[in-house]
Amino acid sequence: MAVLQSDPVHSIIAGRAVPGTAGAMRATDPATGEPTGPVVTLLSAEQVASAVRAAHTAYRAYAATSPVDRAVFLRAAADEIDALGSGLVVRAVAESGLPTARLTGELGRTTGQLRLFATEAEKAAHRGVRVDPALPDRRPLPRPDLRVTQVPLGPVAVFGASNFPLAFSTAGGDTASALAAGCPVVVKAHPAHPVTSVLVAEAVARAAAATGMPPGVFSLVLAEGTAPGQQLVDDPRIKAVGFTGSRAGGLALLRRAQARPEPIPVYAEMSAINPVVVLAGALAADPEALAAAYVGSLTLGSGQFCTNPGLVFLPGGPGGDAFVAAAARQLTRTTGQTMLTAAIAERYAARSAALAELPGVAVVGTGTTDGAHAPAPRLVSVDTDVFTATPALAEEVFGAAGVIVRYDSVDDLVPVLAGLEGQLTATLHATEDDDPAALRLLPVLADRAGRVLWGGWPTGVEVTHAMVHGGPWPATSDPRTTSVGSLAVERFQRPVCFQSVPDRLLPPELQDANPWRVPRSVEGGPATEASRSGPVGPQA
Amino acid sequence: MAVLQSDPVHSIIAGRAVPGTAGAMRATDPATGEPTGPVVTLLSAEQVASAVRAAHTAYRAYAATSPVDRAVFLRAAADEIDALGSGLVVRAVAESGLPTARLTGELGRTTGQLRLFATEAEKAAHRGVRVDPALPDRRPLPRPDLRVTQVPLGPVAVFGASNFPLAFSTAGGDTASALAAGCPVVVKAHPAHPVTSVLVAEAVARAAAATGMPPGVFSLVLAEGTAPGQQLVDDPRIKAVGFTGSRAGGLALLRRAQARPEPIPVYAEMSAINPVVVLAGALAADPEALAAAYVGSLTLGSGQFCTNPGLVFLPGGPGGDAFVAAAARQLTRTTGQTMLTAAIAERYAARSAALAELPGVAVVGTGTTDGAHAPAPRLVSVDTDVFTATPALAEEVFGAAGVIVRYDSVDDLVPVLAGLEGQLTATLHATEDDDPAALRLLPVLADRAGRVLWGGWPTGVEVTHAMVHGGPWPATSDPRTTSVGSLAVERFQRPVCFQSVPDRLLPPELQDANPWRVPRSVEGGPATEASRSGPVGPQA
Repeated sequence: MAVLQSDPVHSIIAGRAVPGTAGAMRATDPATGEPTGPVVTLLSAEQVASAVRAAHTAYRAYAATSPVDRAVFLRAAADEIDALGSGLVVRAVAESGLPTARLTGELGRTTGQLRLFATEAEKAAHRGVRVDPALPDRRPLPRPDLRVTQVPLGPVAVFGASNFPLAFSTAGGDTASALAAGCPVVVKAHPAHPVTSVLVAEAVARAAAATGMPPGVFSLVLAEGTAPGQQLVDDPRIKAVGFTGSRAGGLALLRRAQARPEPIPVYAEMSAINPVVVLAGALAADPEALAAAYVGSLTLGSGQFCTNPGLVFLPGGPGGDAFVAAAARQLTRTTGQTMLTAAIAERYAARSAALAELPGVAVVGTGTTDGAHAPAPRLVSVDTDVFTATPALAEEVFGAAGVIVRYDSVDDLVPVLAGLEGQLTATLHATEDDDPAALRLLPVLADRAGRVLWGGWPTGVEVTHAMVHGGPWPATSDPRTTSVGSLAVERFQRPVCFQSVPDRLLPPELQDANPWRVPRSVEGGPATEASRSGPVGPQA
Repeated sequence: MAVLQSDPVHSIIAGRAVPGTAGAMRATDPATGEPTGPVVTLLSAEQVASAVRAAHTAYRAYAATSPVDRAVFLRAAADEIDALGSGLVVRAVAESGLPTARLTGELGRTTGQLRLFATEAEKAAHRGVRVDPALPDRRPLPRPDLRVTQVPLGPVAVFGASNFPLAFSTAGGDTASALAAGCPVVVKAHPAHPVTSVLVAEAVARAAAATGMPPGVFSLVLAEGTAPGQQLVDDPRIKAVGFTGSRAGGLALLRRAQARPEPIPVYAEMSAINPVVVLAGALAADPEALAAAYVGSLTLGSGQFCTNPGLVFLPGGPGGDAFVAAAARQLTRTTGQTMLTAAIAERYAARSAALAELPGVAVVGTGTTDGAHAPAPRLVSVDTDVFTATPALAEEVFGAAGVIVRYDSVDDLVPVLAGLEGQLTATLHATEDDDPAALRLLPVLADRAGRVLWGGWPTGVEVTHAMVHGGPWPATSDPRTTSVGSLAVERFQRPVCFQSVPDRLLPPELQDANPWRVPRSVEGGPATEASRSGPVGPQA
């Protein structure tokens, strides 16, 4: 393919740069509101459909790739993206307004994530191979040979997120996990960072070409408005959807996917306020340091994290008062940072101002605005009665707005926490002295969130095997999964059982010789990687 | 609890027989259309709600049960049901019209299934424990300790199926797998076999009491009409639904669950026509024997199996002709058997008669009717053009009605198979001579079904580790799962990650000492059961 397009830049469909025929746009520099970077052409509906067609065409061949081939592809993609280096970071900074250090870190996270999924694809434990050998002598009836493997669902539509232009976008977690599962991917670029998206897409397409993957395994579509995304979700060849963004956006896609003649899974990570519960013991030592760490987490990256701690439950009394006073001092010293888009900044400014106007709400502190695109952080406080009576206080305000809820007793706290909507995270600050309360609260928090933290702050999501970035509705549309970490690959598969199929016609991972050395469980035992752990198969 | 109720019999709510206040009914003997057995009282909406309330109350305690405790409960339930023995079978025969031998076998399958899930609960591999130890020296930031376990979703509503009064009903696969996962269960009894349901429910309740489970872990509700089922699906305390039945019924529950403020997973196994493809080689040896086996599978149990082979693709030419002639002879010798309910028999009779009236359809053979409740088996044939042009031929007719599609070439067959709706099973009859065609067709069949058979007939579902009783929409509402076999337990769980939580406060399966000896994967390695495989946890 033609690499490193200059101006204009185009969508990448099945390895080719495709000039869009439905107009053009330029990215906006969030700091200045001015256009930045090259012209970006926009695809027509027919051109978007051609990306799905290419994914559909690629599906069978890509689904049949070996663990090693898939891993080689994903590692090549990581290498190609790493090779973009500071050029990519500069573009992402210009389009997102996020600082260079943050995006440099995010680049490393993105390619590290691709390599993690490469290793998962290679280990192939996710294929979930199970073998129940034939029992020809069983009475009254013999048992047939049964072998199950997980097959990829089909082409997946991924929606890039505004707040992670690299790690949750073009080659982010959804894309990497779907590709590891064997699903071709069509990414709908987020309009806030189109050229960043194209640079990454070119890298993935180069990797696909260099490692012999079918070209349709990956496409990036740049198109205007909400219709192209709806078109992707409606297309019968699309078999699953990955999304990170607003609740309104996620719900709209989910409803659409459910209304299809063939409904499909939607993995939408939508919103959370990530409650933090501070118990009395945690305030005994150094409430000021705790408050400083809180304000740091709240205002990190303008608060534009899915795991931003928007809600803190703090005891009444002097310890809590000291925390509030320290947080007020800290917060008033902060200055707003440029937000991702003008629309996000405006929405934040309006909603954080509205918070302060609600009856019973006291303003703890307000930072400094740094122009229209960098509105001020804000912190308010209420008591549990006001919180319970005011649903707006439990709604996410995307940005650096925090609500402190002062509680009188753990008895008061339990029903309030149990009544929260589903969350991505829930955090408990406590010491051993708080154990009786912690034992009561941990199950409540585990019931309401996908990740429970003891101490620390929820911003900062490790990409590992035990991570859960998910949670009960409406934090996500499907609490049975995670969008970060190696478990994410399991979202894009379904089991198929082969009964009495001759060895020569079985998928390789089910053949007796186990040529791919895939872990397999025999008769429900532990999965082992022995090359011939399977029993002798039936003969036709 | 009061055991072995006589007349009237009542719903079982949290271990107690609860006389319903919303009227009463009696079961109907499908053979005679006459009432049979004792009077059954019917619950009011408030009484149904009390069963959900009890399940909600039981949830936390039951979710916290150890692998061994859960296994002891499930084995006790199996023992209690086995102890009912022929008394249960007699009642199930009277209520379902199914033969004694079949229900005796189904009883064994039901208790075998409970014991399989007991073993799964005990092994606890389904808890999916993964540990990523803290890396305090990592740069630039230390990594926290991360541990994930799968927690039960919450109370599950299970809908008993008409066609398996034991194995897919009160203590059938959905109930057994939900209980193994740690979810309390509320079963809505199928109105066709109420007393069978009560007998089994009493047995489960006795087992729960004897093994110290919270009483609300299991309830059976008997209630009239569709409203009580809708009420269960709507109840915010219900967190998942298991259903086996008609497409209309499954879709109605699914739509309802999706419309809740908090949507929940619905595992509905709805309908299939289970295509069977016969290749030329398979007809070379003995087409008559193959046809006889086919008619045997088609008419087994009046064709009232989810896996009934309703559609056969047969080559044109003399081999296929011989198969059709033999099938016609076999089928005309068959006699209808009593169907499960009068409504099912009437619907079958009307729909199988309508099949024969469709343009381009030839009647291959019709069996003998044995009264209004035992309508005649029927077999028709068409060519691929008629089949493609007549969607009604691809719709399930629940009962012993078969469609044979004569095809000219494998080239013709591929698009027809690819165009089928999702199926529970797809079967290929072929020999080694057919390998080139088989290699083309197997991926198409695997794309359309949850289980692919080489030879044999799809009726007969093994309850094992590698079984898949599921498949793409609309065979089921969720192709990512199975409703039969040990994988079914994974439907009722979600992952929760614990970050830096002190060992003393972790759920037992995540504690360093691993007191339950649960298999755990460390840093993405294979899951092992070493008692202290976890790293040393953080200290608060």
